[in-house]
Amino acid sequence: MSEYTSLNDLGEFGLIDVIQQSVKLQNTSTKTGIGDDAAVIEPGQKQIVVSTDMLVEGIHFDLTFCPLKHLGYKAVAVNISDIAAMNAIPTQITVSLAIGARYTLEAIQELYAGIRAACASYKVDLVGGDTTSSNAGLIISITAIGEVAAGEAVLRSTAKVNDLVCVTGDLGAAYLGLQVLNREKQAFMANPDMQPELEKKEYLVERQLKPEARMDVIYELKELGVKPTAMIDISDGLASELMHICTQSGVGATIFQDKLPADEQVLDTAEEFKIDPVTCILNGGEDYELLFTVPLSDYDKIRNHPDITIIGKMVDKQEGVRIVMPSGNAYPLQAQGWRHF
Amino acid sequence: MSEYTSLNDLGEFGLIDVIQQSVKLQNTSTKTGIGDDAAVIEPGQKQIVVSTDMLVEGIHFDLTFCPLKHLGYKAVAVNISDIAAMNAIPTQITVSLAIGARYTLEAIQELYAGIRAACASYKVDLVGGDTTSSNAGLIISITAIGEVAAGEAVLRSTAKVNDLVCVTGDLGAAYLGLQVLNREKQAFMANPDMQPELEKKEYLVERQLKPEARMDVIYELKELGVKPTAMIDISDGLASELMHICTQSGVGATIFQDKLPADEQVLDTAEEFKIDPVTCILNGGEDYELLFTVPLSDYDKIRNHPDITIIGKMVDKQEGVRIVMPSGNAYPLQAQGWRHF
Repeated sequence: MSEYTSLNDLGEFGLIDVIQQSVKLQNTSTKTGIGDDAAVIEPGQKQIVVSTDMLVEGIHFDLTFCPLKHLGYKAVAVNISDIAAMNAIPTQITVSLAIGARYTLEAIQELYAGIRAACASYKVDLVGGDTTSSNAGLIISITAIGEVAAGEAVLRSTAKVNDLVCVTGDLGAAYLGLQVLNREKQAFMANPDMQPELEKKEYLVERQLKPEARMDVIYELKELGVKPTAMIDISDGLASELMHICTQSGVGATIFQDKLPADEQVLDTAEEFKIDPVTCILNGGEDYELLFTVPLSDYDKIRNHPDITIIGKMVDKQEGVRIVMPSGNAYPLQAQGWRHF
Repeated sequence: MSEYTSLNDLGEFGLIDVIQQSVKLQNTSTKTGIGDDAAVIEPGQKQIVVSTDMLVEGIHFDLTFCPLKHLGYKAVAVNISDIAAMNAIPTQITVSLAIGARYTLEAIQELYAGIRAACASYKVDLVGGDTTSSNAGLIISITAIGEVAAGEAVLRSTAKVNDLVCVTGDLGAAYLGLQVLNREKQAFMANPDMQPELEKKEYLVERQLKPEARMDVIYELKELGVKPTAMIDISDGLASELMHICTQSGVGATIFQDKLPADEQVLDTAEEFKIDPVTCILNGGEDYELLFTVPLSDYDKIRNHPDITIIGKMVDKQEGVRIVMPSGNAYPLQAQGWRHF
């Protein structure tokens, strides 16, 4: 007899019971959570923001090297990142799962352990969802809801000429983390006795497996009295996201290559993999840092912030979106983004 | 050259553009729709309700007999049905798709044509979503948002002893529609020259392929001044849903077999398929009618409503959940529900 519990034996209602019992609500705006036809939320005078993301096994994650608990955490964090990018405070999530036949109750509980850890970390309530079976692997669809005072939401379309272009944290690490994990997977498949070589790759692997939404920066900007003029989270790569802001705001941008923040492990590992580190930083994706613009007048408020780097400025639309190399030469920025089709 | 457009050529951003351009917003509470990190919604003093459902190809739908346009409509309707079951007015939806490699842009546009038709019919705004590829078939995850005045949401857990048990419309047709479609599929696979035999099955097939959320009844109950004490939509079958209300409200129920509403095509086709029609009515599922309870004092307001049938009453918990047959014998109700695992 297996020591694991088959979801087939448990049934959908049984699984929902298990999930519901492990959930604790912490937001006063959550009036009714799991267990009815819909959750009831009372935002008061606030506006709400709603974002949704779908993660598909084999496309967005590989369970060979991504533990289910980390996957649950990441699935929530990437949605919270979208809420952060609106300058909003996350309050609720719903989680829908399509579950392949090989998953046991214990596996799904691991996934939910990660989801709950993220809920605790970001102070959001799990208020609903759906669970069903899948003919293929695991599919996770999360919808995140947040609150923002009317007029405080920050869109992509409101950057102005002369605004400073800022990014949080550093870039390129999640992409290189994925390259490292894929290399170790190949080595393991060739020789299962191999131990993974992750020395001096810890930061990259962590950034790939356990990204964090930059809610900390959202709270800090509020404390500093800085409201970004435009903001987006970096899921597809800096270049692609900067293009979105420029296109939607009707402006151009100039950024400086020598200002782009990167961890030393990114530079070392890019060299090891013979990839241009600038490509990793510009187009790597999955960093879940924030890209935002602020008026020039806010320069003094942010210039010494340890987690914010000013990388350039917004310019006239006619100047296009360009990157200036250390040589002084400027090139049009290429947005590669991720093509999941 | 194919006359169809590959999603691979179009890319995710291209697909989002196509979708976004076809969307028109109609609710004043929708401040920002598709095109930013999250949608912005302003519910004012209202509470919001949030529900989510996932539909998986091969589990919930079979494209052999379900046209993509109908599928899009149904995917929205089943979510709106959850909003209706909260006594709320639907306002926004998000739609996330994982799309298998065989789907073309034209196929996804058909799906969205159905989604837009449902948005128009239920007056909801498509405000966001996510699109990605899938290694298997099509997966549709929809989150629906609705508004309700504080105190007006109707839960499952608030039915009282002596309340009347009511259902809208008629039951069992969607289940038999599925049996008919499956039979015709088998016949077609055995002999592709066969024409489907759907005479006197039109209603059943329509109920399976194009269910409607009963928002009409929600509006009518408001006009009649009737607020249900508890409500749920019938997605898994009357028996299962009645059990949910009884369990969550801590009461029992007695319903009468000869009161259960069914269309003549249900009775005829159940006989033809040698299935007990009462089983179809009680456990068929996918009817998306509303099951609700009202105080006895509302009897006169609803007894002549053409779309509402009183099928029994709520009783003490000790009496259990029972069905009384025309013979006068009472039996404990069996909830079979759908097991998608």
